[in-house]
Amino acid sequence: MEAGNLSDVDVGEIGEFGLIERLRRALPPAGDRVTLSIGDDAAVWRAGDRFALATTDTLVAGVHFLPGCVDWRDVGWKSLAVNISDIAAMGGEPAVALVTLCLPSGTAVETVDALYAGIGEGARAYGVDVAGGDIVASPVLTITVALYGTAARRADGTPAILRRDRAVAGDAIAVTGWLGGSAGGLRSLRDRDEESPSGIALIARHMRPRPRIDAGRAAVAAGVCCAIDISDGLLQDLGHVCESSGVAADVWLPRIPIEPALIERYPGDAAMLAATGGEDYELILVAPESALAATGAALGTPLAIIGRVRAGAGRARLLDVDDREIDVSRAGWDHLKRAGGSA
Amino acid sequence: MEAGNLSDVDVGEIGEFGLIERLRRALPPAGDRVTLSIGDDAAVWRAGDRFALATTDTLVAGVHFLPGCVDWRDVGWKSLAVNISDIAAMGGEPAVALVTLCLPSGTAVETVDALYAGIGEGARAYGVDVAGGDIVASPVLTITVALYGTAARRADGTPAILRRDRAVAGDAIAVTGWLGGSAGGLRSLRDRDEESPSGIALIARHMRPRPRIDAGRAAVAAGVCCAIDISDGLLQDLGHVCESSGVAADVWLPRIPIEPALIERYPGDAAMLAATGGEDYELILVAPESALAATGAALGTPLAIIGRVRAGAGRARLLDVDDREIDVSRAGWDHLKRAGGSA
Repeated sequence: MEAGNLSDVDVGEIGEFGLIERLRRALPPAGDRVTLSIGDDAAVWRAGDRFALATTDTLVAGVHFLPGCVDWRDVGWKSLAVNISDIAAMGGEPAVALVTLCLPSGTAVETVDALYAGIGEGARAYGVDVAGGDIVASPVLTITVALYGTAARRADGTPAILRRDRAVAGDAIAVTGWLGGSAGGLRSLRDRDEESPSGIALIARHMRPRPRIDAGRAAVAAGVCCAIDISDGLLQDLGHVCESSGVAADVWLPRIPIEPALIERYPGDAAMLAATGGEDYELILVAPESALAATGAALGTPLAIIGRVRAGAGRARLLDVDDREIDVSRAGWDHLKRAGGSA
Repeated sequence: MEAGNLSDVDVGEIGEFGLIERLRRALPPAGDRVTLSIGDDAAVWRAGDRFALATTDTLVAGVHFLPGCVDWRDVGWKSLAVNISDIAAMGGEPAVALVTLCLPSGTAVETVDALYAGIGEGARAYGVDVAGGDIVASPVLTITVALYGTAARRADGTPAILRRDRAVAGDAIAVTGWLGGSAGGLRSLRDRDEESPSGIALIARHMRPRPRIDAGRAAVAAGVCCAIDISDGLLQDLGHVCESSGVAADVWLPRIPIEPALIERYPGDAAMLAATGGEDYELILVAPESALAATGAALGTPLAIIGRVRAGAGRARLLDVDDREIDVSRAGWDHLKRAGGSA
C-alpha cells in the first residue's frame, strides 16, 4: 500500500515480530479505555471495578501439531492451556473462553468429541467457562481459543498485573518449574520414544502444559510487576522483556533448572534445550530479590534465580559459569520467519 | 468416544448446529459467572457494575471469500463487521477486538497491510480498539476476530440485552433496513457484474456490511428483549429465535423490505433472496408493537413489521399474501452440512 515494491515482499521475510510491529502502526491508536494493547501477553482494559484481560492463540494442524501423532484430547487441552498461560503471565485469573474450530469436510465426529473432551478437562482444571465460539468449514483443521480474564485494581487505580515493560536494572530474574521438558517431548515424539518413562514424561510436558496461574497470582500479591510466559523459549522471551523495558539481561546457563527427564533422555542437549526450547509455559519473573523470595514463599517452593537485569539495549545474553557469552543462534521460534531468513 | 461407530460419522452429516448441540453437552456446564452461554449471538457474564459480552467469527479463504475476487480491505472490514453485528444483536456496545491471522508462506505484505487497513476502518467507524491477537503460519489464509463488548445492568440486576429466547406468542416481528442485498452482491460477484450501479451497490452490501449497533441499542432502550442478526438468512435466523423461545412465527413475504438494487438487478428472485439470503447483518427484533414503534421512533425510521409470533413448536413459516405457506427448501446456510445431507 505504501512505499516501494511491497508485492515483492512476503511475510516470511518480515517475520512474525516485524509484522506485529507493522500492524500496530497500521491500526488506529488504542483509546483511553485500553491500558495495555498489542505487545504484551494479553490486552488489558478497565471493566467496572476490575480490569479485563484478553488473549487469543491458535493451533494449526501440520504446523503446531501433527494430526497422525497426537491424541486429540491433548490437542484440546493444549489449545486452552496456551491461552491460560498468557493470563498467568499477566498475573490474572482466567474466566471465559470462546472456541473456534475450522474443520475440513470429512472430519470424524469422534475427533471433535476428543478435542472438546480435552478442552473440557482444561476448563474444569482452571475454572474456565467455555461460553461460545464459532464452527466453520476449512481445508485445514485449526483451533483458536480467545480467553478473557480479570485482574484486580490497585489502590492507585492501576491494574494489579505483570507487564513486559517493567524490568529495571538490578532486578533479579527467576523462573518457575523446570525448563526444556516441552522441547524434549517434541524430540521424543520425533524419535518415536513414546514408551520409556522419560519419553512419556517429556511428551506429557509437551502436550499437557500446566500454566502457572498460581505463580502469576502469587507474584502480583508479592509486589512483582514484570513477567512473561515461556512460549518461544527462555532466552527469546526474556529478550521480549528486555526490548519492552529498554534493558539488557544476563542469564547463567548453570543456574537454569532443567527438567529431570530431559537430563535423563537427552543429557548432551538438555541445558541448551532448557535455555532455548519453547512451549514450557512456565513463567519468567523479574523483580527485586525480596519480591521473588516472597513469591516463592507463597508458592511453598523457592524460585530459581537464573540471572540479572542490567542497563543496556534490549537483549538477553546466555553466560557460562565463567561469565563468557554462549552463542545461541537460531534460538526460539518465529512463527513466520524462514530458517536462514534475514534478520 | 461414546456409543457406536462414531469414526464412521463425519461432521458434514451432523452439521454445524448438530455439532454445537453435541459440544454444548460435552463441556462442563457454565458456572454462576456466566449469564448466557453457547446458543445466543454472544456470551454474557457479569463484569463489575456492567455485563461483558464476547463473540468470535472466522473468515476462511476459499470458503467465505474468494481470494482472486476480493479487495483485501473489504475482507478486513467484513471480518470485524460480522463480529460487531453479533454485539448489535445483543443490544450491546463493542469495545475491544483481538485479531488472529493465519497466513500461508509467501503471503504478500501488501495483502496483510490491506487487510489491516480495512480492519482499521471498521475499528474507527465503530469505536473498537484492536488490542491484540495472534499471527501464525497456515496453509490457508484465515482471519478470526474475537470481539468483546459491554451491556448495562437493569435495575433488577439482569443485563440490558436482547436474547434469542425471549419471543412470546403475540409479539410482532420487525426487521431493520432492506434485505437480500448481500445475497444479491454474491450473485453479482459470480456474474462478474462489478460495474453496473446496481451491481456495485449489491457488492458493497455483501463486502461492507454495516452492523446495526444503533438499532440494537435503541431496541434495548425501548424495552425490546428479543433479537438476532441476519447472518444465515431471515427465515433461518428467525427459526433460531423460535427454537430458543419455544414458539412459532409467521412471516409475510410481501411485507419484507427488499433491497432496491436487488429488485432492479434480479427482479425475479429478489423477494426470495430477501427472505432467505444470508449476511445482511440487519436485525430481527421481536417484541410488542409498541416497543418496536418506540425503537423506530428513536432511530428516526419506522421499522418494517413483517410477521407475528404464535404458539407452536420452533419453526418460522413464510406466507404469501393469502396466508398460504411458501416452500423454502434449502434456505439459509449451514457451514458444515453438505447440500442434500440429511436433516
